[in-house]
Amino acid sequence: MEMESIRDTYSLGLKPQPKSVTATAEWRRLKVHARHIAKMHLRDVLGVASRCEALSAEFEGSFLDYSRMQVTQRTMDLLYALARRQRLREKIAAMCRGDKVNVTEGRAVLHTALRSAPDDAPIVVDGVNVVEDVHEVLRKVKAFSEAVRSGEQRGATGRLLRNIVAVGIGGSYLGPEFVHEAFSTEQQHAVDQDLNDFYRLRFLSNVDPVDVRRTLYDLDPQETIVIVISKTFTTAETMLNARTARQWLWDAMGKDPSVVARHMAACASSSAAARVQNFGIPPEHLFEFWDWVGGRYSVCSSVGALPLSLKYGYGMFDRFLAGARAVDIHFQHAPLDRNLPVLMGLLGVWNMSFMGYKTRTILPYAEALLKLPAHIQQLAMESNGKRVTVTGEVVDYDIGPVDFGEPGTNGQHSFFQLLHMGQVCPAEFIGFIESQHHLHVEGEVVASHDELMANFFAQPDALALGNTREQLVAEGCPPELIPHRTFAGNRPSLSLLMPKVNAYYLGQILALYEHRTAVEGFMWNINSFDQWGVELGKKLASDVRSRMHKFRSGKGTLSGGLNPSTHGLLKRYVIRDRDAFKHC
Amino acid sequence: MEMESIRDTYSLGLKPQPKSVTATAEWRRLKVHARHIAKMHLRDVLGVASRCEALSAEFEGSFLDYSRMQVTQRTMDLLYALARRQRLREKIAAMCRGDKVNVTEGRAVLHTALRSAPDDAPIVVDGVNVVEDVHEVLRKVKAFSEAVRSGEQRGATGRLLRNIVAVGIGGSYLGPEFVHEAFSTEQQHAVDQDLNDFYRLRFLSNVDPVDVRRTLYDLDPQETIVIVISKTFTTAETMLNARTARQWLWDAMGKDPSVVARHMAACASSSAAARVQNFGIPPEHLFEFWDWVGGRYSVCSSVGALPLSLKYGYGMFDRFLAGARAVDIHFQHAPLDRNLPVLMGLLGVWNMSFMGYKTRTILPYAEALLKLPAHIQQLAMESNGKRVTVTGEVVDYDIGPVDFGEPGTNGQHSFFQLLHMGQVCPAEFIGFIESQHHLHVEGEVVASHDELMANFFAQPDALALGNTREQLVAEGCPPELIPHRTFAGNRPSLSLLMPKVNAYYLGQILALYEHRTAVEGFMWNINSFDQWGVELGKKLASDVRSRMHKFRSGKGTLSGGLNPSTHGLLKRYVIRDRDAFKHC
Repeated sequence: MEMESIRDTYSLGLKPQPKSVTATAEWRRLKVHARHIAKMHLRDVLGVASRCEALSAEFEGSFLDYSRMQVTQRTMDLLYALARRQRLREKIAAMCRGDKVNVTEGRAVLHTALRSAPDDAPIVVDGVNVVEDVHEVLRKVKAFSEAVRSGEQRGATGRLLRNIVAVGIGGSYLGPEFVHEAFSTEQQHAVDQDLNDFYRLRFLSNVDPVDVRRTLYDLDPQETIVIVISKTFTTAETMLNARTARQWLWDAMGKDPSVVARHMAACASSSAAARVQNFGIPPEHLFEFWDWVGGRYSVCSSVGALPLSLKYGYGMFDRFLAGARAVDIHFQHAPLDRNLPVLMGLLGVWNMSFMGYKTRTILPYAEALLKLPAHIQQLAMESNGKRVTVTGEVVDYDIGPVDFGEPGTNGQHSFFQLLHMGQVCPAEFIGFIESQHHLHVEGEVVASHDELMANFFAQPDALALGNTREQLVAEGCPPELIPHRTFAGNRPSLSLLMPKVNAYYLGQILALYEHRTAVEGFMWNINSFDQWGVELGKKLASDVRSRMHKFRSGKGTLSGGLNPSTHGLLKRYVIRDRDAFKHC
Repeated sequence: MEMESIRDTYSLGLKPQPKSVTATAEWRRLKVHARHIAKMHLRDVLGVASRCEALSAEFEGSFLDYSRMQVTQRTMDLLYALARRQRLREKIAAMCRGDKVNVTEGRAVLHTALRSAPDDAPIVVDGVNVVEDVHEVLRKVKAFSEAVRSGEQRGATGRLLRNIVAVGIGGSYLGPEFVHEAFSTEQQHAVDQDLNDFYRLRFLSNVDPVDVRRTLYDLDPQETIVIVISKTFTTAETMLNARTARQWLWDAMGKDPSVVARHMAACASSSAAARVQNFGIPPEHLFEFWDWVGGRYSVCSSVGALPLSLKYGYGMFDRFLAGARAVDIHFQHAPLDRNLPVLMGLLGVWNMSFMGYKTRTILPYAEALLKLPAHIQQLAMESNGKRVTVTGEVVDYDIGPVDFGEPGTNGQHSFFQLLHMGQVCPAEFIGFIESQHHLHVEGEVVASHDELMANFFAQPDALALGNTREQLVAEGCPPELIPHRTFAGNRPSLSLLMPKVNAYYLGQILALYEHRTAVEGFMWNINSFDQWGVELGKKLASDVRSRMHKFRSGKGTLSGGLNPSTHGLLKRYVIRDRDAFKHC
């Protein structure tokens, strides 16, 4: 194994395979060790100061406490050994220098390059220095957003462009939306709060016409710029919505080419340039991103840069990039046991593959991060919900948890009952020392942010410690309620305490989770950067669409080749039975 | 067992216990049967028309197709046998007639009564006919909302009350928000669309001061009515936010009692009446709900009625109640094998307890239902995330899946990769024949709603059927990509196809899921109506709050009795290290 080159680790299926990770001594040791850990209760170890201190790490004031994970120093040492066995550092280095680690698509994976500094060493992909490309597009975004915000660039009828509609789905939507929701209450880095408030940013993602209505119904097309986000400029939902938005602009301002030219822009690959132009969007409004940027890793490309800079000014986005860049450097250089995303990734592997926990919940104690869980859900589940290794063997070990979450304290009044008493689901608490908004209502014991954070500190202990029959007896709990009020405890969580909710630390959070995801994939020996699993559904949907069309235009029947269930459902849909509607 | 009365089934812990459900012949038969089913592939049975027809049921045009669940008719028969063994019908009847089936709190569970007709037979709880109480409050909501909407009832300074801020958390928030989001694009039952658009409804749930800012920053207090929703009027987050909102009103209009009297209302239990009045809200603005309404089952009480009627008019809410009522009657009277919520519940039990699937995803193909998954997540996970049976024995079988979801097609571009290729996660597809909004862009092959629904029809087949190496070879897939593009299939889902997204069918959906949840709990022999699991966290948070306060006011130290981890985190929070902030 040591003799193989890194590139071989990434080679595709047809040559002799390295043995499965489960066959390594390092994996087997962890399996045995997990049986010991299963007997440990967090209640018995959480009081040990040296353990608490050892199971923590810090970067630029962001503090990761993982003492409530079901681990000991020995667990971590075994995980580091597995990481070395899996050549984790080499894989990280290979990704960041532009090796084509997305082997099934033959692509580099360089979202880190999106956060490079202009004077960084070149990163060359297929003979091109991508650092230069990145900064060229960023300069273009900056200039364009400033031109719009200054009123220099206006709509076809001369009005200020104050509404920004970003049309995109999946990775072209969830990341920018998460950042937008967090920026919307961020004042520290805003150049001009009034100016930011003047601009409205909305996202149109779902192909459901109701989403179109929700997004556009109260906007004036004359004041609206529509950004179409799709790497290939072929995503079915996005392109239908783009044509819908174009029609909406035309309906208001006529079908003159200047309407699309002035009111629409695109974020797409340069290889889609012809499609963009055919659509009516001029080259100067094409803001490129590249094959080496995966959709779910694209927030830091023009996908996020353009809408967010139009709404908040480029400076705020630049601070966001700076935070991500800081974590990128940390990720590449900090030793494994001080490396926040590595630690988070190793703990993810531990919980899923060795402790058998199939789910994980992310709990930002910050309303500004209300859309973070949905973004991480996509990032993690699309990356690591796989069935084969990078070399094509069917994975026979547990990988890829279901990720979900809500902001605290809201989650506490929703699914926390299950976290405390139902199936074990490792939790990730994210809290901030300083809020975006100071509020201490007259007469209250503590400020509102303190009230929020009191819960952030309390919940992990409730999960870890639980309570016992003896405690309940001592508290005078009625005997018949004791079983119902007993908490078993021993539920793992980690706490990430960061200084402040601002653009810089949002960038950090994004990069932490991107790299956490990659670490898990590297450890599991899977390709976290492709998504073949979404192809079959697209193909079948296209078949259904064509059946609908043929049937409606009298050119075909519905049924040929369909199973009776799908045929029955489809028939109900296209032939609307009046009986079924009599209750409407 | 047959000799015991229903009431005994619900008795609390101290008397001789019935044997565990796992010890029954019915449960054991299902366990054995599940081993056979594990060998069945959906690909091999989905073509059988008789099976597809058998595995479906319909109610008022709402069509449930569960032919893609990993079941046969034999599975269903065994589940019905277990349902009889678990006295499912008797438990449903007991719940609906007002027996105190929430034994640990000694309460009836009567959300069905909230949907009663005014002339329904009395349902008596502790000597009171709750049907009368329900309709008295509904009349009060109707009168009040009409007075506000007509301008008869105005703010303290004479302005129209056009902003409605609902302050509540958990069940007092998620249900109303789900319905609000769906109503917002519903025009069919709207009395006057312009009037509805004039009113703005917002929810303030999180204690995070950023949520306060997000909710209130652009509202004029003179035009705002604040509804405080908390059964006991003591929920920590809600009451702090209520005091915050009151201060905001006072700051704008002075501390005259008329300000609170005219700008605030409460949804609370009558036993909290004194607290409501002390807060400054007059009795005529207290809209009661009752001990027999659980928070997560409260949408149909004043909790939903008041904010939704203010925003949309009472008529729309009334149609919503009618839809729920129709399902309530169906639930109580339809035979098990034709009973939609019973079928959904039995399938939930099958997937979790016999097939071992720990998660479940709900996928409304309707942007209007974007908040349904969060509501169902609370409803299901808080209800059935339990550790003991109703009689206090620790549950030693799998119960309580993790529920999550997003609207389709958005989810397809997020976590569907995992659904297709990662761990098995049963999926629930909800689609509608008719959209709220018709849109067919010129030149498009199909309407936007068709495009959406093409995906609704296609995805369940992609999950169930998958594809094979042979198919890929035939399609010319490059050999090295075959393992990556092979879909194992055999992933279970159910499809619920309903006529229309409107108030009536939204009521149906709500009741279907409420009853599905209850069925699962009845089958698992747990109490789906209490939530002791949230108590410990509250207690510990209160302790942290008091430490913060004492430390800040110089009256105490942080550390006594805390474990070193919590002490360390808390110290970081209260003593802000300047070093940690230098990157901000």
